[in-house]
Amino acid sequence: MTVDFSASRPYRVHHVPQWDHETDVLVVGFGAAGASAAIEAASAGAGVTLLEATSGNGGTSAMSGGEIYLGGSGGTPAQRQAGFSDDTEDLFRYLMMAGGPDADESKVRVYAENSLAHYDWLVAQGVKYKNTFLPEKMMEPVTDDCLIWSGSEEAWPFVEQAKPCPRGHTPQFVGWGGGRMLMDALAARVEALGVDIRYDSRVLALIADDANNVHGLVVRNDGQIRFMRARKGVILCAGGFAMNRDMVRRYAPHLLRSDDPIGTPGDDGTGILLGRSVGGAAIHMNEAFVSLPFYAPESLVKGIFVNERGQRFINEDCYHGRIGHHIMQQSGDRIYLLADNAIFERPAEFTRIDIAAVGETWEEVEQELGLPEGTLAHTVELYNRHAAEGRDPLFHKGEKWLKPLNEPPFVALDCRIGYAFYPHFTLGGLDTLPTGQVVTEKREPIRGLYAAGRTSCGLPRWSGGYSSGLSLADATFFGRQAGLNAARAVTEESQ
Amino acid sequence: MTVDFSASRPYRVHHVPQWDHETDVLVVGFGAAGASAAIEAASAGAGVTLLEATSGNGGTSAMSGGEIYLGGSGGTPAQRQAGFSDDTEDLFRYLMMAGGPDADESKVRVYAENSLAHYDWLVAQGVKYKNTFLPEKMMEPVTDDCLIWSGSEEAWPFVEQAKPCPRGHTPQFVGWGGGRMLMDALAARVEALGVDIRYDSRVLALIADDANNVHGLVVRNDGQIRFMRARKGVILCAGGFAMNRDMVRRYAPHLLRSDDPIGTPGDDGTGILLGRSVGGAAIHMNEAFVSLPFYAPESLVKGIFVNERGQRFINEDCYHGRIGHHIMQQSGDRIYLLADNAIFERPAEFTRIDIAAVGETWEEVEQELGLPEGTLAHTVELYNRHAAEGRDPLFHKGEKWLKPLNEPPFVALDCRIGYAFYPHFTLGGLDTLPTGQVVTEKREPIRGLYAAGRTSCGLPRWSGGYSSGLSLADATFFGRQAGLNAARAVTEESQ
Repeated sequence: MTVDFSASRPYRVHHVPQWDHETDVLVVGFGAAGASAAIEAASAGAGVTLLEATSGNGGTSAMSGGEIYLGGSGGTPAQRQAGFSDDTEDLFRYLMMAGGPDADESKVRVYAENSLAHYDWLVAQGVKYKNTFLPEKMMEPVTDDCLIWSGSEEAWPFVEQAKPCPRGHTPQFVGWGGGRMLMDALAARVEALGVDIRYDSRVLALIADDANNVHGLVVRNDGQIRFMRARKGVILCAGGFAMNRDMVRRYAPHLLRSDDPIGTPGDDGTGILLGRSVGGAAIHMNEAFVSLPFYAPESLVKGIFVNERGQRFINEDCYHGRIGHHIMQQSGDRIYLLADNAIFERPAEFTRIDIAAVGETWEEVEQELGLPEGTLAHTVELYNRHAAEGRDPLFHKGEKWLKPLNEPPFVALDCRIGYAFYPHFTLGGLDTLPTGQVVTEKREPIRGLYAAGRTSCGLPRWSGGYSSGLSLADATFFGRQAGLNAARAVTEESQ
Repeated sequence: MTVDFSASRPYRVHHVPQWDHETDVLVVGFGAAGASAAIEAASAGAGVTLLEATSGNGGTSAMSGGEIYLGGSGGTPAQRQAGFSDDTEDLFRYLMMAGGPDADESKVRVYAENSLAHYDWLVAQGVKYKNTFLPEKMMEPVTDDCLIWSGSEEAWPFVEQAKPCPRGHTPQFVGWGGGRMLMDALAARVEALGVDIRYDSRVLALIADDANNVHGLVVRNDGQIRFMRARKGVILCAGGFAMNRDMVRRYAPHLLRSDDPIGTPGDDGTGILLGRSVGGAAIHMNEAFVSLPFYAPESLVKGIFVNERGQRFINEDCYHGRIGHHIMQQSGDRIYLLADNAIFERPAEFTRIDIAAVGETWEEVEQELGLPEGTLAHTVELYNRHAAEGRDPLFHKGEKWLKPLNEPPFVALDCRIGYAFYPHFTLGGLDTLPTGQVVTEKREPIRGLYAAGRTSCGLPRWSGGYSSGLSLADATFFGRQAGLNAARAVTEESQ
């Protein structure tokens, strides 16, 4: 057979020569979303086959810190132990703001109300949390501690609409390997439930009928083409498209300003293309998490960011991904973080943030950077004047981070786009219902097709609102919903 | 028959009960792109049926000023008559910059080299140009004059890479109705060529085979469903999606900040959905022309724009659409245009730009606007200092527009997003080759399917580079290519 299969074109069910494999639910991708989908589908009694393109599980989830954004319903054990009470409506409001101008209210609502139960589910799967709290601003704990401020909860404008609460929960693991630990727990559960796992299995096309109802997958495995039938549903959890630079160029070309995509080679957009091939809508394809993880050291949060005209542009106490969003909005690549001797500490080496200029006065720094007289120096003067009064009328930085930058020597740190570390991954993907069902442009569900994780467009869908842990929260929670709903789907035979 | 047709799902050719109509080329949409496609296909000897959803021709093209971005090859008659020589490479470089980070070099190349010939073609179709030049900065001539500066050619950074030349060509028509005149000429030509025109004909779905080759259209006309066969090709010229606010929300939600979409009800995205239903890639869906047409009066170009922190953000002598792009990048809705007594003139009423504050000093204006002390006033002081020296080191505004704003009274004009006039239309759409062929994500052409105009993503694809006349240039030129190439397509019968 010499058929040219394509992710962009469904293979027609009436052309299937034979079914090489049949099951209830086919899950594509063994990251956190796929694992969660498989667990719930299998737990609900469905036969599940999980297809993974590589030889091992984990995907991009395993490369992460494993942090998950959780809270509401009064608070998780870690939140309560740290003295926080997290109201569901505060979580709801925060997530609505974090979702940006097209936040998905139906998903935010169901997640806010069920986030605490999702925490319990994660623990039941074997994910361990120490339930301790670290109050400092940081990317992720390097200790085995649990709870951190992982978003912009305490920062303007979020703080004005939602009572702040830390919600980033990291598994109990020493170092930055919590994602692997999370995946190990989920993968063990997948195996214990008897899910049929097929590694080295690449999905080539969806199998659909003329109405674009999905019936299965064309899969390449061991050099063989196999036609696999899903009686109840196919769940696409194949990651985003950060590693497919051709797609990035056509959908989110601003990301090409950075050479630091986060992902595995599997984040090539195949999942999104598969969903689109049967009329699924792929939305917010220009949106991404794009960050400058400049803290810790936390003291640098007391510094100020300026663009290449010496203008400030953000309250520096918000989440580093929100700062990345605003950096990308500036014209020009030169971005500086200004600090004085009192707050200066070297940023982590991996950030590639070097020193651009040093001076005994801000005028000297301004000059050394080649900025016109009265630009950067005026910006600092204005900031210092207000900071001394404990306020920031321009950007509303929180009082605890306001301190005049008046202790020489002064330094400008070089955060240039194209040189410094701007990790990024894509947030656009298939539009889905809270059930995980992929929908068309008119938001009609496509029968037999589900998606979760970065193959879908979920809770995180706006670079200005990203918070650490949102992607894994979305992937695990809505992966579960997809698994549950696929398992419950009424098959044609049983109708 | 009670089939539920959908633009998101092709109707399968083996289900077609009978062909109600057969021709070589089916063109969808009777705006400038569709008319140009029909003219070229018919001129090449193809049988052409043109389907228009409304009862008349013109679409959004007829609502426009009819301006077309033309030049290169030494210059059009209007350019040469005004003393300009327009080098093809300058046009090429300008269009590459205007296309932004993912400019389509192959389209830019073919357009730059053939733009002058395209001018001749337009004249041959009956479009009349007076070939006079108006040097003032304006939206469009209200007289019957022809040539204007319609982009950012003289402005930084364009001026540094491409020798400036005015390229906006408006038909000879008194008032802002040049688009209707352009369409009348093209429509008369379509009729003269014997094209079979079907008004009130709504396309419901593409007809495709299992390999997603396109064979025709399902059309509703007179309450009847008709299956129409295209032996050589279907050309989608059905406009963009500015009027489909659900689509705008999911693809370009920042546009919802303005209530002024430009378009007809036909700009509902149907053309894009049809193309996607057979695996066509829709790219740069977040991009749009979004403008604040604050000039004429030209003197206001000597003013300066500030955001709600009193910061300048753009060289004010660039095209108003590029200014709109930068306005949309500012956080906050408050945008002011500052002028002194020497340059102040009232903006046109339709701009809804009112006076926000007046003062005898800039400090007074600053205070009246409620901005912190030393923000706006400092911005003006810095600008004035450099302007007096004939330079703008921060934003590189051209010297002829630099004048200290030092003659009281001073005024801040209110350009608030959500109140002032920010017209916009979408630039994202189907990815096509210079031949007009719609391509998949892997850039493989879809057999039998073409697109042009705002259904496609063409020369204009970045809000920061839009110039008046680019959309009609793209629609007419690449509409022609689609028509020509469809007419020349080899049919299955003739193979």
